[in-house]
Amino acid sequence: MTTLNAKKVNFEIERNIAILNIQTLNELKIKHSANIKVKSDSGEIMCEVLSTDTLIEPGFIGLKEKSIEDLKITENTKISVFIRRRPQSLEYVKNKRGGSVWKEGEIRSIVNDICSGQYTELEISMFTLAQYYLGLNMDEIANLTTFMAEYGTTLDFEEPVYDKHSIGGIPGNKVSLIIVPTVAAAGLLIPKTSSRAITSPSGTADTMEVLCDVNFSADEILEIAPKVRGMLVWGGTLDLSPLDEIVIHQIEQPLGIDPHSQMLASIFSKKVSTGVNHMVLDIPTGEGTKMPTKDDAINYAHEATELGRRLGISIEAALSYGEQPLGKAVGPALEAREALEVINGNGPTSVFEKSAELSGILFEMAGLAQPGQGAHLAADFILKGKTKAKMEEIIGVQGGNATVNPEDIVIGDKVATVVAPKDGYIVKLSNSNVKKIAKAAGAPRHKEAGVYLHKKIGDFCKKDDKLLTIYSNSEGRLTEALNISMNLQPFILEGMIIKRISSGTKI
Amino acid sequence: MTTLNAKKVNFEIERNIAILNIQTLNELKIKHSANIKVKSDSGEIMCEVLSTDTLIEPGFIGLKEKSIEDLKITENTKISVFIRRRPQSLEYVKNKRGGSVWKEGEIRSIVNDICSGQYTELEISMFTLAQYYLGLNMDEIANLTTFMAEYGTTLDFEEPVYDKHSIGGIPGNKVSLIIVPTVAAAGLLIPKTSSRAITSPSGTADTMEVLCDVNFSADEILEIAPKVRGMLVWGGTLDLSPLDEIVIHQIEQPLGIDPHSQMLASIFSKKVSTGVNHMVLDIPTGEGTKMPTKDDAINYAHEATELGRRLGISIEAALSYGEQPLGKAVGPALEAREALEVINGNGPTSVFEKSAELSGILFEMAGLAQPGQGAHLAADFILKGKTKAKMEEIIGVQGGNATVNPEDIVIGDKVATVVAPKDGYIVKLSNSNVKKIAKAAGAPRHKEAGVYLHKKIGDFCKKDDKLLTIYSNSEGRLTEALNISMNLQPFILEGMIIKRISSGTKI
Repeated sequence: MTTLNAKKVNFEIERNIAILNIQTLNELKIKHSANIKVKSDSGEIMCEVLSTDTLIEPGFIGLKEKSIEDLKITENTKISVFIRRRPQSLEYVKNKRGGSVWKEGEIRSIVNDICSGQYTELEISMFTLAQYYLGLNMDEIANLTTFMAEYGTTLDFEEPVYDKHSIGGIPGNKVSLIIVPTVAAAGLLIPKTSSRAITSPSGTADTMEVLCDVNFSADEILEIAPKVRGMLVWGGTLDLSPLDEIVIHQIEQPLGIDPHSQMLASIFSKKVSTGVNHMVLDIPTGEGTKMPTKDDAINYAHEATELGRRLGISIEAALSYGEQPLGKAVGPALEAREALEVINGNGPTSVFEKSAELSGILFEMAGLAQPGQGAHLAADFILKGKTKAKMEEIIGVQGGNATVNPEDIVIGDKVATVVAPKDGYIVKLSNSNVKKIAKAAGAPRHKEAGVYLHKKIGDFCKKDDKLLTIYSNSEGRLTEALNISMNLQPFILEGMIIKRISSGTKI
Repeated sequence: MTTLNAKKVNFEIERNIAILNIQTLNELKIKHSANIKVKSDSGEIMCEVLSTDTLIEPGFIGLKEKSIEDLKITENTKISVFIRRRPQSLEYVKNKRGGSVWKEGEIRSIVNDICSGQYTELEISMFTLAQYYLGLNMDEIANLTTFMAEYGTTLDFEEPVYDKHSIGGIPGNKVSLIIVPTVAAAGLLIPKTSSRAITSPSGTADTMEVLCDVNFSADEILEIAPKVRGMLVWGGTLDLSPLDEIVIHQIEQPLGIDPHSQMLASIFSKKVSTGVNHMVLDIPTGEGTKMPTKDDAINYAHEATELGRRLGISIEAALSYGEQPLGKAVGPALEAREALEVINGNGPTSVFEKSAELSGILFEMAGLAQPGQGAHLAADFILKGKTKAKMEEIIGVQGGNATVNPEDIVIGDKVATVVAPKDGYIVKLSNSNVKKIAKAAGAPRHKEAGVYLHKKIGDFCKKDDKLLTIYSNSEGRLTEALNISMNLQPFILEGMIIKRISSGTKI
């Protein structure tokens, strides 16, 4: 152990680094690239060592701002530096190789060691790739989920909590903004945490943020939600599942992987953390979704309900049609506007029906409707203005304009429209291409940006009918989005030639 | 692509880093921690980005000295920076998960991409851990070996090349210093490349370096070896298997793993690179070795000979007794001295016999002796001074003192001896404990440091007879080595109490 003076360096990088003078390294008998444990009175982090002979004096340790915050120190605080030993729990990770099943206590050690910063990035990759290459059984997934939740913030409501979750994958899915007020209007508690967009043009939190604040602390949620019965907040600031954040940012995103067991544990750990007891699980299915075949979706549904059973969460899974975007609006502001239209009784039928169906399942789970009758009841809530009244209340307590009208919502003033090249029925409308156009237009970062779809699959259009309109707040992004649209052709019209191949053309 | 001015920063770290101003990052539309490709006229590397708002100006790129060397540039050279895309071959790595067998072309792409710096450290871990968790079949290992060799330096001798390889694991194994001159004395070409110690107190290259230089270029070896018939050089500078260096340093050592397939490919790629045609493979077997049971060793032998067959290398594997150190000397100088003693006809019988046996197998493979007669012939070479004459020639061409005597070799002047606590037969002598003592004394870094064993298994000793002597060139290290010896008790005498357990003692 050595004591050194903290010094802030102006570096930004995801991993923790400690910059030490070469002389300090010699004293510690370690080399650059080694990992050290850095400890203050109130925190401990692991750092990879960079050595220097000029930038940091002997006796000092250079740390990035985030590390100084994590250690809860200021510049020149004396902190201790230790040579790091490989955590014991890494042996459990390694044993996966011989086919070992991770025991409860082993998983707990692994989760705690990763979350408390005992693992290097490579060691975290060893843990994540064990799951990727070898998979986990259901016991292991349940334990992983439990300990992931245990390490983070937990919200303890003293009554049953309802939730709706979608595995995502299709653009335009704004139903949470309708389901939450509908379910809350019936008196059920639905304090929904949601995510921001990762690869989509708008996450539920991004869409809701158009209408009001979505950043609330655990204490605020525990105070507000039981009174209003529903909230729609961003889960990101709550630290519900610290391991999830680490694994996603340090390993899964850089490698472009999403191991199945980790994905389930990721979703469910946040449900456990927020005390969810009853959940409807939306599984968009079909070409262009995360579940291309019905079998995939059914397998997933069985797994999720089984995992829920082990964790004490009753789950009803609903396979939904996912081969085109949901509704007509894609992008935060456009989606928020469409959600309000549905709540006002004049939005697209598909969004209305899906919202009523999923809300209805929760009504049935709660015993508020007979089996098969929930959707009618939920539709009634929407049509009779109960959903609208509750949504206004939620927007109000979340600091927004409670009486906002759909047309008040600002959308991009740079506009371009794509029209049909010929008469015909729409036979395809690609999720991924619509996503790309909306993102090129600026979504989700620029909330006003997005795509409005004038036609959906099965619609007939005449030559020069509007197919889609792109909204942006930048001419450059609008042009880019339009170019992408021209290249990708998100709409396929019956009889349209998709690609011409003549002799000599490379297929 | 952007063009930036190179600037050297005084940092040392294993991975490549590029320090960019935050403004440059915004222009490139990338974030810190991203990976970029940095290209000069004569080189290309991949770097992880650190961002700063003070240390590097916009328009500049901070690189460590090694990166500047690798790019073959100087400060202020204009270099290009590209956003990096994940290499296509990473998809092949990922496909291992679904049980895919890596095809020849796929392995070639993976090896080439890793060696040319296209992979991030995490991606290299993904490749290494695919092997660790899932293993490779023999076709894959053979292809991996071939392409690893292909990417590195190759030595092309225009005649058959002989070699001896030991899988290692037991201390005191200095037989290569006797086998190489014996085999070369018979006229066979044996240009042996060997490694430095990784975890042992002395690698063959460390031991040979006590007597002469071991750093030779490929051209020097190609010129000298055919004339002298034998050399003993360090393989490290030759760049025989670049992938091996990358994987060992960046992944295997930090994680403490040694995947079987990678280990085989590591050994054999260097054999392919040096043009080996006939090889005797020494597999020390038994408790305290890498092959604890005879079955392990036999399986390994079959695998290695099969891999050799596919690569065009004929192999004879020899299982040898490995439950105690070989000979009496452990540590570079002590081992070099003992090797010379054997060559002079007065070293320990075990070292003499093992050297003669392994040399004899090569004689038989070359047709110089009838099956079963090789060891006699080799023993004759040693006893009649032919080995000695050739060793003097080799030491001479490798720049050492050709007529060095064993007693000329300097060993540590700080000495401590451990004696027997009672009368008895030696029933155990622990490889790993002897290693720890020798390393604590300073080996292999301090060549004069090591351990001399006065007794071996089966010997009788009286109370206060010398068991081992520790040599060091530092009082501190001597004391530490002595303490370790007292704690670990490398010798077990028959009837000795190993551990006392009384009620209340934690076992």
